[in-house]
This record gives sequence, structure tokens and C-alpha cells, in this order.
Amino acid sequence: MPSRLTEDELIAKFFAPLAGTAGLNLADDAALLPAGNAKIVATADALVSGVHFFPADPPGCVARKALRVNLSDLAAKGAAPMGFLLTLALPADWTEDWLAAFAAGLAEDARDYGCPLLGGDTVATPGPMTISIAALGEAPQGAFVSRAGANAGDAILVSGTIGDAALGLVLRRDPALAARLSPASRDELLDRYLLPRPRLSLAPALRHAASAAMDVSDGLVGDLEKLARASSVGARAALDRIPLSAAAREAVALDPALLAVAVTGGDDYEILCCAADGAALSAEARDAGVALTQIGEIVAGPPDAVFLDSRGAPATYGKKSYSHF
Amino acid sequence: MPSRLTEDELIAKFFAPLAGTAGLNLADDAALLPAGNAKIVATADALVSGVHFFPADPPGCVARKALRVNLSDLAAKGAAPMGFLLTLALPADWTEDWLAAFAAGLAEDARDYGCPLLGGDTVATPGPMTISIAALGEAPQGAFVSRAGANAGDAILVSGTIGDAALGLVLRRDPALAARLSPASRDELLDRYLLPRPRLSLAPALRHAASAAMDVSDGLVGDLEKLARASSVGARAALDRIPLSAAAREAVALDPALLAVAVTGGDDYEILCCAADGAALSAEARDAGVALTQIGEIVAGPPDAVFLDSRGAPATYGKKSYSHF
Repeated sequence: MPSRLTEDELIAKFFAPLAGTAGLNLADDAALLPAGNAKIVATADALVSGVHFFPADPPGCVARKALRVNLSDLAAKGAAPMGFLLTLALPADWTEDWLAAFAAGLAEDARDYGCPLLGGDTVATPGPMTISIAALGEAPQGAFVSRAGANAGDAILVSGTIGDAALGLVLRRDPALAARLSPASRDELLDRYLLPRPRLSLAPALRHAASAAMDVSDGLVGDLEKLARASSVGARAALDRIPLSAAAREAVALDPALLAVAVTGGDDYEILCCAADGAALSAEARDAGVALTQIGEIVAGPPDAVFLDSRGAPATYGKKSYSHF
Repeated sequence: MPSRLTEDELIAKFFAPLAGTAGLNLADDAALLPAGNAKIVATADALVSGVHFFPADPPGCVARKALRVNLSDLAAKGAAPMGFLLTLALPADWTEDWLAAFAAGLAEDARDYGCPLLGGDTVATPGPMTISIAALGEAPQGAFVSRAGANAGDAILVSGTIGDAALGLVLRRDPALAARLSPASRDELLDRYLLPRPRLSLAPALRHAASAAMDVSDGLVGDLEKLARASSVGARAALDRIPLSAAAREAVALDPALLAVAVTGGDDYEILCCAADGAALSAEARDAGVALTQIGEIVAGPPDAVFLDSRGAPATYGKKSYSHF
């Protein structure tokens, strides 16, 4: 087996050279296209059966996850959803029942999030069900919250709680561990893996008060490092300030090694953001129904992200974030 | 094996109900989004290895085809390309050489067509290489050429020549037949299958002078019927007016049954359009370097498409167009 490029290396080597100005060097969650007086934000994500979801997952949940991971990118950029394109590669054994449930879930989210289906393509595949969604949003007044705007002195904040989905995935794969959790905690973590909660209500606050933002999709540790690099700043965060749900805390209490899974596992679809006035951003977020928690500060210096443990020592992780390769 | 929905039935049943106003009921080549004073045209298509291309095809050609089939949709809608999103599902055996050649082909077309890469997603798949591209275009002055605007009395025209790509695919699968063609004709047909030629230079003429347009991707016979239905008109075309290349004529001379393949096989990526003044549209197209040929007329009456043979009898086809299912 030859040594392989990581996903980021692959993109930087082969595809970043193709990116136009609007593509932001493929270093952000989304692209920003000028369109007359408006600005269009565009993003795409794909889910593959057996890779990003379990074949037996409820089809409606699969559909909603496929849309929501894209809506999360729009939210992080401060954009309002306009619609989405769907390309669906169907394996030979697709059934009308599966597709009906898939479409029903998709319809529910399209309506709830004000993001209608615009078009797309349906093809046959000899491989697994593959769902690719491209979502378009509008950046009101052209405001776009990039990854690259963080400044020394900014507060670093995250929305909601971190690690629930990654722990949910662990529970899917480890029924013995799942059986040791309380039913309520187990169900909550499993649900967070199945159904991300895109923080679209946070978009206006991000436009007003955030210096930089991205969604946490590949793990908080690695994603904060990406943001720091994009902004050419250092990031200092404290592990014990990272907001964990009661369910996640219960899981970590059973096995302390799960804390590393929570902060590097990904699939959070929470918002990581920076602001000169973190309290003002938090207050505006609270008014929008989203809890933000400050986890650290941006510092001048080389672009890196350091997470300090409770003794003030830098935490090290074998793998900072999820990569497909 | 239960009886299955066709691709069109599947879309109408499960996904058309999710389409917003901008999605045009999923009955056109692309969506039309208002964005301030501008209008954004959005479209998506997927290619699966072993289904839409041969695994051994040159990776640069595969990349260019994946982009070009989308550019063809933009051209048909009279739109100018703005950029595209790429989601790439890579099988375990991907190589850097393959990907480098893929990216090089994509870069060449992105540059030549002024359509930069905006972003996307790269994922792993246990299935075949799957390439999904969503392309965005701008409709200058909000002009959008729909499928639904044809009127009785309009001329029906097609760009370029019809059937070359479908015949190229036949030659790929039938080396004995291929060996009976002249090398030049064989190479031309094979090339047309590998590399569509999106008619972007035709877009301004379509905006000015076409009443309706679509790209011919699933076969001329079936696609003209789609246009007639969308416009609620009848379409009358003559088989012997359909423009065939010298290479296609050579193939049809070897086997007259190949004429049906040419007009129903698809993968043409030519433009099918209607105009009150067909001569004026043709003249403007000629100035843009694209040959248009009138193949028939739009008539009042029930929405259907009839192709008359040289004796004036309606031609019938077992299968009017390509369907994935």
C-alpha cells in the first residue's frame, strides 16, 4: 500500500490551483460569488452509504443529514439558504419505499429550513447509494464570514456542545459500551450522530459580530487549527472549557479516552467562531436561541492551535481530525 | 424483479413536490434563482465510472466531460458560466497519477470556458469513481431560455450534428463494426462520445432570438417530446432534415438501424431550440460559429413530437431516449 496524500493535501495539490477568486483557494467552507448587487454562497457535500451513514439508517434521516451538513456550512458563513441541487446515485437494489421515505425527510427539512430543491440528477450506480448536495445561500448585504478574519485578542467560541455525534458513532459500533450508558444519554448521542442541527439561526449574529467562523465537521481540534492557519494567527483553547452535553460527560466518565474522540471525531456541525467582543456575540446568539461558549483566545504568533489540559499542558492527539483517506 | 419507475417518473413522484419556484418544477435543464438584480442559473449532473464512462477512459477526458455536460445545460439556458462545485467519491484504488490527469483536464476546461472551481467535497467510496458537478451561471439581464416557451409556428432547430456520441458508444462496444468504418470517421465518433462540445457561444443568440431551448442529452426524439410537453405544443420534425456528420452517415450506411441509435441514443450535448424567426436565430448562431439546422415546426395541438420518415410516415421507436433505470 503506497503512502497516500491526506484529503487536505489532495485538495491543495490537485484542485486548489483550479479555484477562481470566488473559490477562496478552496480553503473555506463555501465559495462566494458576486451576482449583481447580491452575493451567492455555494457549498457541496457528499454522503456515501457505508461510509457516512449506515445502510440501515432511516432514509428520512439520511436525506436530512445530507441537506443539513450543507446548511451548516451556509450558517457558518452567515448566509441564508436559497435552495439546493441533489444528485443521487442509486444502487440496483433501491426500492420505492426507501426513496419515498428519503424524499419525505428531505421535504420536511427543505420546508423547515426554507431551502427548496432546485434540480439535480438521478443516476444508476453499481456501488453504494451516494448522495451529493450542493447548497446555495445568499449573503445579505454581501456580508460573508470567512475563516480568515480572526485577530489576536479575539475570543474563540463554539455553539452547542461538542463530541455528541462522534460519541454516537462510537456507540453504534460498540453495543457493549452503549449498554453501559443510561438510555436517555445513549439515545441523545445516537440521535446527534443521525441528525445534525445546522445553526442557521446563528447566521445574523455571525454577520454582525464574528471576525471568523467555520462549522465543526471534521473535529474541533483540527478545525480550530484550520481556522488559525487561514487567519495566520495562533489559537489557545482549554480542554475543560469545551462544552460537553450531560450525555457526553456520562460517556467520558465511563471511559476517559472518549474525551479525545469528542474533540477530534467530527460530525458536530456546530459553529466555531471568533469575535473581538465575545460577550456581545454570545448575547446576540442567545437571543437567537443558540448557546455559545468561549473556549479560548486568539494570539499573535505562528498559525497553530493548542489545547491545554487541566494542568496547563498542551494536549496531543494522534489524529486531530477526521480524514477520508 | 418488480416493475420500476422510470427516471422521469421517479423525479416527478418523489422530488418535484420539493421544488421551489426557482426549481421550475424540476422540468427544465436548470434552476433559476433571483439574486438581487441578477439571476443565477444552477444545474447539476453526475457521472459514475462504468455507467457514464469507461474505467479506462483518459482521466482528463472524464473530468472534462463531467464539467461539459453541465456547461451544456448552462448554454441551453442562455447563461454564462460563473463556476462549479465538485464532489468526488474516490474508490480505494485511486492513484495520484489518475487524479493528476483528472485535475489537469478539469483545469484546462475551467480556464477555456471561464468556469473556475468554487469548492466541493472529496470522499471515499467502496463503489466506483463518482463525479458530481454543480455548475452556476448568470443569466444576463435576467434572461433565461426555458423549455416552456415554444409557440405554434416556431421553427425547430438543432445545433451541430446529432448522434455522433451515441454512435461512438456503439463503436466502443462493437469493435467489429468499428473496424468496418474509415479510421477518420471512427476516431471522430469515438471522440464525440468522450468529449461533448458545450455550445456556450450560442447562449447570446438563444437569449436574443429563441422562444425555448434545452440541451440534447437523452436523445433527440425523447428530448423534443419533453420540450413539446413543457411548452404544451406539438412538434413536427423530419428525420431526413436531422443534421448528421459525414462520419455518422458512413456508419448509418453500413447499418441503417443505426439511424434510430443516432436520434434516440443521447449524449449529444447539442442545443435543441425553437424560434419565431428561425432564419434570424440561425444567422446570429452562424456569427457565433455554431451551425443551426431547422428540423421541423411547432404546431398547435396536443403536446407530442412526431418524426416523419422520407415517405411522410411517423417513425416509431421502442425507446425514445436514454433512461438510467
